[in-house]
Amino acid sequence: MRTIVLGGDGYLGWPTAMHLASAGHDVWVMDNYLRRTLARQTRSEALIEAPNLHDRAERFESLTGLKIRVHVGDCTNVEHMERIFVEAQPDAVVHYAEQPSAPYSMMGRDAAELTLRNNLCATFNVVWAVLRCAPNCHIVKLGTMGEYGTPNIDIEEGWIDVHHKGRTETFLYPRAGGSLYHTTKILDTDLLWFYVRTYSLRVTDLMQGPVYGISTPDADRHIDLLPNFHYDDLFGTVLNRFIVQAVAGVPLTVYGAGGQTRGYLNLLDTLQCVELALEHPASKEELRILNQFTETFTVNELAERVVHAAAAFGIDVAIDHIANPRQELEEHYYNAVHTGFPALGLRPHLLDDSVLARMLEIVVRYKDRVDPKKILPRVSWNRATHVLTEASR
Amino acid sequence: MRTIVLGGDGYLGWPTAMHLASAGHDVWVMDNYLRRTLARQTRSEALIEAPNLHDRAERFESLTGLKIRVHVGDCTNVEHMERIFVEAQPDAVVHYAEQPSAPYSMMGRDAAELTLRNNLCATFNVVWAVLRCAPNCHIVKLGTMGEYGTPNIDIEEGWIDVHHKGRTETFLYPRAGGSLYHTTKILDTDLLWFYVRTYSLRVTDLMQGPVYGISTPDADRHIDLLPNFHYDDLFGTVLNRFIVQAVAGVPLTVYGAGGQTRGYLNLLDTLQCVELALEHPASKEELRILNQFTETFTVNELAERVVHAAAAFGIDVAIDHIANPRQELEEHYYNAVHTGFPALGLRPHLLDDSVLARMLEIVVRYKDRVDPKKILPRVSWNRATHVLTEASR
Repeated sequence: MRTIVLGGDGYLGWPTAMHLASAGHDVWVMDNYLRRTLARQTRSEALIEAPNLHDRAERFESLTGLKIRVHVGDCTNVEHMERIFVEAQPDAVVHYAEQPSAPYSMMGRDAAELTLRNNLCATFNVVWAVLRCAPNCHIVKLGTMGEYGTPNIDIEEGWIDVHHKGRTETFLYPRAGGSLYHTTKILDTDLLWFYVRTYSLRVTDLMQGPVYGISTPDADRHIDLLPNFHYDDLFGTVLNRFIVQAVAGVPLTVYGAGGQTRGYLNLLDTLQCVELALEHPASKEELRILNQFTETFTVNELAERVVHAAAAFGIDVAIDHIANPRQELEEHYYNAVHTGFPALGLRPHLLDDSVLARMLEIVVRYKDRVDPKKILPRVSWNRATHVLTEASR
Repeated sequence: MRTIVLGGDGYLGWPTAMHLASAGHDVWVMDNYLRRTLARQTRSEALIEAPNLHDRAERFESLTGLKIRVHVGDCTNVEHMERIFVEAQPDAVVHYAEQPSAPYSMMGRDAAELTLRNNLCATFNVVWAVLRCAPNCHIVKLGTMGEYGTPNIDIEEGWIDVHHKGRTETFLYPRAGGSLYHTTKILDTDLLWFYVRTYSLRVTDLMQGPVYGISTPDADRHIDLLPNFHYDDLFGTVLNRFIVQAVAGVPLTVYGAGGQTRGYLNLLDTLQCVELALEHPASKEELRILNQFTETFTVNELAERVVHAAAAFGIDVAIDHIANPRQELEEHYYNAVHTGFPALGLRPHLLDDSVLARMLEIVVRYKDRVDPKKILPRVSWNRATHVLTEASR
């Protein structure tokens, strides 16, 4: 199977490329290093400076004999996107090529515009590259559980039957994101759903929860193959941030009351889920939506897990509740269906002390590179504590 | 009250500008003539060539003494948009500045991209121009009833209470548009809803049905003040097309079975609704959604009304059912709430023979300008009858 990974330089994109190559896919990656550029501009560099994609792919090939074809290019550039589709004639495309940070999207007008343009335009170009150049290609799109927000009813898997005044209709589950980034993913889903039912595309939209982890069988082969591990307030996910704070000997910063509940998953399960989605493609005219997480935690529970695991490592960690920079509920109902992937064969890697110990072990090696001031929130959009400032304009 | 009308050259924008000026508003209009440009490119010119905005505004002032300030500019250009907001410090903005044609948006990739970019970018710029330059400004945005599609349950006014597994949540009513144009309006609503709840904007989103009519008290003052009356397949709405077909002596072209039901309104009621929305602004942090139509018809009913009215005019008209170029249900449930505007004081101008007679009377004067071949559908996206062709790529 020939598979293009768009955004193949990312925290998830690069491990996905290696994983699919190891699983026998002919993998082509495309990336314009947008995330690296934004990280540099915002002083949010990853913990470990990763080599460029060409060098990483060479390293991977030297260790495995497996080739990953690298194309450096911008997915918002239609000519570039279509050239790779014409040449590759892919069976599938995994679309990670989006500005991935919620806080970045809330930094001000320019960052918001970049996020909106980049994410919508990349998705639009994927749709048309498939329509014009590879009509049977299965699109696997990375959405987010954050599209659903935190409604007061159960979150279903993409669709909901609404019974209303004696009649029934099945709708795309109503969505309300907590940042502009999340909102662009909602717009992506709307756009894909329109084109699926109009032009008979086959699309899988993965509603993924926050991912944690750094170790994968392929990444563990060499330091050059590690994913881009961000621990800052913009590009780092919460559990990764907590691990780095523990290692740095600073308190874990919980936003607000810490009752925010989300569905999380191990990086290993992202790889497994994407592979399962590719092995079982959506049908023509189908927008298949899968909720991609394995277990739910409150932020407080995650912090406590890290405190416990760090203690076993001989590290004493405190927890600090700080003013929530985000506009979100801190105590809420949360019950989200996620039966689709288990039905396809997912075997979850759940969060336990050994997983946290492995993360701590790797991060400790890079302890000297940690800059703790990169972890505290620099962007606020909480209505209760914040008015739109000059800085965020 | 100072009010900016974005898209002030349009079929609705220009009559709105005159109406608000006559009602005492200090009206500023902005338009880049995009619709005129696209109409020329696609051989879809309006029935009557309208003077440019400056000339129209001068004519209007010479007849009424009322000034309309004209700014020619592109709403996707942030500098231009913010300059007018800084200068005007508007109390309200009426946002019509979008590519308004569903068939145009389905002509192929380039037209789709133009529609997506133009509509989303204009809406995004309105949001930020208000946030940065006029934070109390009330945004009145033109959406479409087509955002809802034709669900099998009642269409509520913007929001719906969903009862699910013993719990309840109020959601933005789920949407599914019939073209990319309609889908961009859905994305607009998603985007506005996000910014309303995050940055406390005040927004009224008008879900408007297809509009018909050509005559308004202000437009009737002089031929130069008539709205841009399109009768072609791209920019003409269905009843306006039927009137022109009747006058041209060609059969009325009903798409498919003709059971498609929609909520319609007279151009006079668009003016009334927009004025009512401005007189009763949404609150801070409120996305108020109003369904803007006065009565529902099937396409067959509209055709029969026109046949009847034309007969009284001495014109014998046939009805021709042609292959439906659109992807839509031709028989379906349709029951849409529209109590918001009557509660604000709307006095509807319903469709009767006198309204149709007035339209026929005006169009007859311009009979020689009608090119009947402009009326037949040139763009198809019906899945049942059409595959994506080279032409539509």
